[in-house]
Amino acid sequence: MQTAKAPLVRPHSATGFDLKPIAAPLGIVLSILGVSMLLPALADVSSGSGGADVFLGSSAVTVFVGVLLWMSGRGARIKRLDLRQAFLLTFCLWSVLALFAALPFMWGRPHLSITKALFESMSGLTTTGASVMSGLDDMPAGILLWRALLHWFGGIGIVVIAIAVLPLLAIGGMQLFRTESSDKSEKFMPRVGAIAKGLLLSYVLLTLLCTVCYLMAGMRPFDAVTIAMSTLSSGGFANSDSSVGVFASPAVDYVAIVFMLLASLPFPLYARALAGDVTRLVTNSEVRLFLLIVAAFTLASFAQQSLQGINQGEPAFRGALFTVASLISTTGFMSVDYTHWGPVSDALFFLLMFLGGCTGSTAGGLKALRLAIAGRAVRQHLKRISYRNGVFPVRYGGVPIADDVVASVLGFVCLYFATFLAGGVALNMIGLDLRTAFSAAIACLSNVGPALGPVVGPAGNYGGLPDAAVWILTVTMLLGRLEILTVLVLVLPRFWLR
Amino acid sequence: MQTAKAPLVRPHSATGFDLKPIAAPLGIVLSILGVSMLLPALADVSSGSGGADVFLGSSAVTVFVGVLLWMSGRGARIKRLDLRQAFLLTFCLWSVLALFAALPFMWGRPHLSITKALFESMSGLTTTGASVMSGLDDMPAGILLWRALLHWFGGIGIVVIAIAVLPLLAIGGMQLFRTESSDKSEKFMPRVGAIAKGLLLSYVLLTLLCTVCYLMAGMRPFDAVTIAMSTLSSGGFANSDSSVGVFASPAVDYVAIVFMLLASLPFPLYARALAGDVTRLVTNSEVRLFLLIVAAFTLASFAQQSLQGINQGEPAFRGALFTVASLISTTGFMSVDYTHWGPVSDALFFLLMFLGGCTGSTAGGLKALRLAIAGRAVRQHLKRISYRNGVFPVRYGGVPIADDVVASVLGFVCLYFATFLAGGVALNMIGLDLRTAFSAAIACLSNVGPALGPVVGPAGNYGGLPDAAVWILTVTMLLGRLEILTVLVLVLPRFWLR
Ligand SMILES: [K+]
Ligand SMILES: [K+]
Repeated sequence: MQTAKAPLVRPHSATGFDLKPIAAPLGIVLSILGVSMLLPALADVSSGSGGADVFLGSSAVTVFVGVLLWMSGRGARIKRLDLRQAFLLTFCLWSVLALFAALPFMWGRPHLSITKALFESMSGLTTTGASVMSGLDDMPAGILLWRALLHWFGGIGIVVIAIAVLPLLAIGGMQLFRTESSDKSEKFMPRVGAIAKGLLLSYVLLTLLCTVCYLMAGMRPFDAVTIAMSTLSSGGFANSDSSVGVFASPAVDYVAIVFMLLASLPFPLYARALAGDVTRLVTNSEVRLFLLIVAAFTLASFAQQSLQGINQGEPAFRGALFTVASLISTTGFMSVDYTHWGPVSDALFFLLMFLGGCTGSTAGGLKALRLAIAGRAVRQHLKRISYRNGVFPVRYGGVPIADDVVASVLGFVCLYFATFLAGGVALNMIGLDLRTAFSAAIACLSNVGPALGPVVGPAGNYGGLPDAAVWILTVTMLLGRLEILTVLVLVLPRFWLR
Repeated sequence: MQTAKAPLVRPHSATGFDLKPIAAPLGIVLSILGVSMLLPALADVSSGSGGADVFLGSSAVTVFVGVLLWMSGRGARIKRLDLRQAFLLTFCLWSVLALFAALPFMWGRPHLSITKALFESMSGLTTTGASVMSGLDDMPAGILLWRALLHWFGGIGIVVIAIAVLPLLAIGGMQLFRTESSDKSEKFMPRVGAIAKGLLLSYVLLTLLCTVCYLMAGMRPFDAVTIAMSTLSSGGFANSDSSVGVFASPAVDYVAIVFMLLASLPFPLYARALAGDVTRLVTNSEVRLFLLIVAAFTLASFAQQSLQGINQGEPAFRGALFTVASLISTTGFMSVDYTHWGPVSDALFFLLMFLGGCTGSTAGGLKALRLAIAGRAVRQHLKRISYRNGVFPVRYGGVPIADDVVASVLGFVCLYFATFLAGGVALNMIGLDLRTAFSAAIACLSNVGPALGPVVGPAGNYGGLPDAAVWILTVTMLLGRLEILTVLVLVLPRFWLR
């Protein structure tokens, strides 16, 4: 047994921190982002809204830096990325990309300050969907497509990271997804490639399917494509200040409901379904728990609306289901304004935002699996303290869960609450009222987007907040998306020193 | 290894649930409570405020039931109380006593409804100090003394339970306080007696010392005695609607500060100090952490007041220290109205209320020891995930902490937050605004008392809440005081069935 103070043996030793193996993959992804900026440029040209030059300029800068990074790292053996390099790469993928993705927001039509532009791009890449922009209905097509693309990249990015990287980093119980082979190797890249293929295919197919459904529900092609990307990524950016409520269409609402829920299910199950194993989608314990929660909350909300005479029949049911799906999937779309449902709406909001979707989905929040394990751990703990002679392993899906997994889930839940409190307190200290501060903190930590109150609620946007608050929330979105620990570990001095 | 489904072997088997061994100790304590009602009766007679008959009547009823219970349990072997009987006894000690302690509030001068009377007596026995009564300055002496006595009994009660019973129940990391001998026996009563003696002596001596200091600071003898009982129990009931602010005396403030902090330290250390071992009070890791937190928050609050020109010099320092001591000790005394310090006050309030005092004190909250262990667990977890080859035990005070203790601490912290959220959401649902709902939930869960906002804030009281809210908060106080799990375990069907 090694104690904390003993020197650690590493399989391939290196003095200092070798950044080269990070540079190459980061450079490649950055170049892809740069090239993708040509799509909004094209949209601006074809719609005649004029803004293509901004995207061409941003693209040139981004691709230039991306290629430079890639070249500088080309000599390194990418396949030998070790643990701390994997941590740093994950962090850089979101933070560095957000910097370059912010360029069009600064140089182009919305002409945001660097603080707000970075918030907007981070909100896109973390699929939070909180916006500092207003007047969306009059924005050029390019900038709207760019926001949707950021969501879409961020969505597939987090699914790949959650399935291929986080389990190896043993973060918040994700080690449950560690496979036999992965346990014996510290090499990430080959694994990432193989896994990413199935996930990407599912993601593309679902997005296409969603686009077709939106078209059939009556959307313009541009709206259908961008909002499908927003839906599958659990992002929530829309092309109107009234979100998807602007369509005032039950058909659109139902399509959104279905695909928001699909985006909250574990993507590895889709990859398996593509390979022929469809049953898992129905028998998976986490999926069942998730759908059960959705059903229970929808029923409660439907009953409340009916009893208090707010809505009746189909509109009440659709409003309830839409709101529950939007909040628990952490998409943050708005169709009906649920904040007029009386005090219950605040409670609904807080509960659903903490819960979140399933692990390995594009949704944020604590996630159903962790809730299940934490709940079972507490139940087993109750049993253990009342029958002192028994040993009660925590079971999930019939399988006993190792103690260190249970501990890391409980630790993650504690840390999640602590981060929420710290964020809320920090915002409160710089002058935001309690409701705005704490709802914004959880809306960004869980990557939902819209929060509560006149400033950051569904009717407002984050543009009215002071710069300090915008920075705090930018960091909070990143912390939430990368499951906190991935970022915190970089703060340990020992991370850099050994 | 036994699994959850296997039958459990118990040292002394019994079919069904034997309530007899609980009846005797419960009856004795209830009789003591009944006899103690003669003190307020005496106070009413000597002050001529007329209300003695109510206390005499309540006393007769309480002593009658107490003796009946004691007689009914006399045949049982009290010394052989087993685990679940200990749980049930702990729960009954607070719930049954609160019922009888509520009689004077219903029958006497404040003439409260049963809902509000039970809230008031529960608030007393749990040392919460939240009140539904207003017009305290004109209340008869008897009812004021009765409230102080409830605090005082509740305070020593929780210290004895926390040190003698909770460790054996392995609740929320309290198993750290398990002694060698206690581990081998399921018999509680002899142990409780021995431990209780030293604790009770410290408690009485500190209360006397506090009374003398209040007298020297210029209080009337009646105020000095009752407020000393309120201080040492971390209770917070006062004899005026303006709390201890009514004295407008720096000397009173400083005495209150010192004894509120002393009430937050582990009482076993006082018992040791009485036996000659004084050094532990200074070298104890939890005490050091607690005092460090107090110093840091006082400094921050002092700086904020000075910089924003709210207060300067000594008044600013005293206001800061008093507020921090009152909130972190979960006493809830008010001297200066800190809610006028701007938005920072809300943040201060929430942070300090969650923290709480030390384990084995009369204070509520999460407690410094758990914060330390949870913090270290997260740090070790970060180390573990970044150096995958090392084994990093969680250490506290230089000693490695067993994994199951760490897990039970983390589980407790999760459960604490979950209870807070559930309470806040429930209150929000019955119509309270977000700030009132969540601040009242934590004020009652942490047994602090005053919350935030116009209704339940320092300037208001809980009397304006709807009955449903009062019931929810009554349960929340009990959950908080008995560390949640002691109550939750009674909800397991298996607790009753085996
Ligand atoms: K979102
Ligand atoms: K209190």
